[in-house]
Amino acid sequence: MTAHVSSARTERLFEILSRGSSSSCLITDLSDIRWLTGFSGSHAWLVIHTNKLFLITDGRYSEQARAEIDAQQANVDVIECRTQAAMIATTKSLTEGASVVQFQDSHISHQLFCLLQNELTASLMPLDASSKFLRRFKDEAEIEIIESACRIADQALAHCHGLLSQGLSESEVRDELENAMRKFGADGPSYDTIVASGPINASRPHHQPTRTKIEDGHTVIIDVGALVSGYHSDMTRSFVVGPMSTEQSDWYEAVRASQQAGVAVCRPGVQASEVDAACRKVLIEAGLEQYFTHGTGHGVGLLIHEEPFINSSATAILQAGDVVTVEPGLYRGGFGGFRVEDLVVITEHGCRILNSSPKDPTCPPSQPMT
Amino acid sequence: MTAHVSSARTERLFEILSRGSSSSCLITDLSDIRWLTGFSGSHAWLVIHTNKLFLITDGRYSEQARAEIDAQQANVDVIECRTQAAMIATTKSLTEGASVVQFQDSHISHQLFCLLQNELTASLMPLDASSKFLRRFKDEAEIEIIESACRIADQALAHCHGLLSQGLSESEVRDELENAMRKFGADGPSYDTIVASGPINASRPHHQPTRTKIEDGHTVIIDVGALVSGYHSDMTRSFVVGPMSTEQSDWYEAVRASQQAGVAVCRPGVQASEVDAACRKVLIEAGLEQYFTHGTGHGVGLLIHEEPFINSSATAILQAGDVVTVEPGLYRGGFGGFRVEDLVVITEHGCRILNSSPKDPTCPPSQPMT
Repeated sequence: MTAHVSSARTERLFEILSRGSSSSCLITDLSDIRWLTGFSGSHAWLVIHTNKLFLITDGRYSEQARAEIDAQQANVDVIECRTQAAMIATTKSLTEGASVVQFQDSHISHQLFCLLQNELTASLMPLDASSKFLRRFKDEAEIEIIESACRIADQALAHCHGLLSQGLSESEVRDELENAMRKFGADGPSYDTIVASGPINASRPHHQPTRTKIEDGHTVIIDVGALVSGYHSDMTRSFVVGPMSTEQSDWYEAVRASQQAGVAVCRPGVQASEVDAACRKVLIEAGLEQYFTHGTGHGVGLLIHEEPFINSSATAILQAGDVVTVEPGLYRGGFGGFRVEDLVVITEHGCRILNSSPKDPTCPPSQPMT
Repeated sequence: MTAHVSSARTERLFEILSRGSSSSCLITDLSDIRWLTGFSGSHAWLVIHTNKLFLITDGRYSEQARAEIDAQQANVDVIECRTQAAMIATTKSLTEGASVVQFQDSHISHQLFCLLQNELTASLMPLDASSKFLRRFKDEAEIEIIESACRIADQALAHCHGLLSQGLSESEVRDELENAMRKFGADGPSYDTIVASGPINASRPHHQPTRTKIEDGHTVIIDVGALVSGYHSDMTRSFVVGPMSTEQSDWYEAVRASQQAGVAVCRPGVQASEVDAACRKVLIEAGLEQYFTHGTGHGVGLLIHEEPFINSSATAILQAGDVVTVEPGLYRGGFGGFRVEDLVVITEHGCRILNSSPKDPTCPPSQPMT
């Protein structure tokens, strides 16, 4: 499954370029490069000058780059350079005659900026701010891939849910989830899978799995996504092993209602901060908002975290084609935590949830394998 | 197993700071932050002012940061900020009174540099170039962890070698290697494990495993490392399934001899480019150097690729405590490729190879599992 690079993508970049004072630019965001050319390696620059595209990469990737670009029928010349100095010299020579070269100021180190500024004849100007939204609206083929990645994570979680009651460790459950995703067709996990259990680990939103055994009474947060053809999925479910305490039940229901309220306002024309506010309102009413210590969501595509971000100060207006997470959570050291997260695509009149794992937090008490 | 953060590390940073015109600085390289404080999360800045250390992170990580820093008995205050604007304002307030704040120009985007420059009262000056070598020389505890990571990769490769003759796909072998590393004690793979087979895939130095079946006559490159307590290992072995052709045998022997020649010159006082030259000389004599399309090696520690790099223009002088790869390879589309890589630590009088997998390239012909 592949989302084909279309000339519409290059046109979208050209349109952004036309807002600046030059038609020449240097693209250094590798996800943008993949989206524009099909190249999937870990090191390249894309130079655009007089409507021609040039991919500069090193000897590890030149043969792969030519094959990937051919497969996409993209019209891009590949140039091999062995050092950064050679990449800079090539950029200089390719942009000969341009008085200004636009660049991605959030995807270039200050050091490299200074080197380029010293070497290039042209002056450097940041690309229009809209460039950070270049890949934002997903086309049908991209949504189909992301949805297939969601289905794989759903299947993996269903496959592994029973393990939570078998006395395994966080890292053993993580291994099973990642193996299951690959078995069901993923290229790998979409990010470091989170399995966080108990009063300390589950109180850390980005805890990494340890050899801590999952025990009765533990809250357990599982945050899992699959990688398919470069595209990510992202989902979180939370559980309690064995009987739930009243406080656990109250907190879980608050998170679930908060998440549902956030999804309910997702539609074209809504400002991202309104989704955050909708989630937060439910938690404020429950007297728990102080324990919601992170933003509400983010875009997902060729990167696991990309535009548009959803938090209290986010000004982006949601539009059809946005694929975003809605993921409020509550965390308290000594108690543990809960997070519920769906990935949704904004549609013409509302939104559609792309994953389908149930939101029942219960697990039977532990019955260690014999 | 943990390499304890020692006050000697902070002293090393203070010594570098003293080469600039200020004792205040902003550290944004997350590996440096981990090395200095023990914090292992994915988002933080470390501010140093009047000999005090302040870790600024977001709500996902503040509780974890306090616990990790306490566990290391490091003397660092943790400050939680929810937005980048708040991080900048906090940095401004913490460095009150400093006329200059030193910063890491290769670990900060040009955009963030401009924001900081606009907001801070102090002016920004890049840290002395020696700062990029801050973590370069490993202490005994670090070497012990890296060596344990090497042993795990050795065990995993021994465990999976027999699979190359069983008609599996590249990605199935990759899965088995990664599962075996976790079983043998790794926190995970050190990087995306490479299993590259046959005339096209093995000709790409950084190929990512596909569902291509490994067949008789294929050259197979396996590049595998384990992650232990944040430290990486890195090793490559190459194989031919079934009988080797004369050309395969000639190419493999050239790579093996080249790699051995590189390791043979690794000792204190040698310039990194000399290691590259020693590897290259063997391949030039074999008439194959044109197919060696990448550098010879790199440092390994809290990052999989770090200083010192080993290539034809590398000026670093190797010293005791350097942990570096030596990994020449040959690649040709339509033929395939070979790479042989060891991780070595520079010792007082020479070097010691940290991994121990055999370099026999043979595999029995395929005997698919029934």
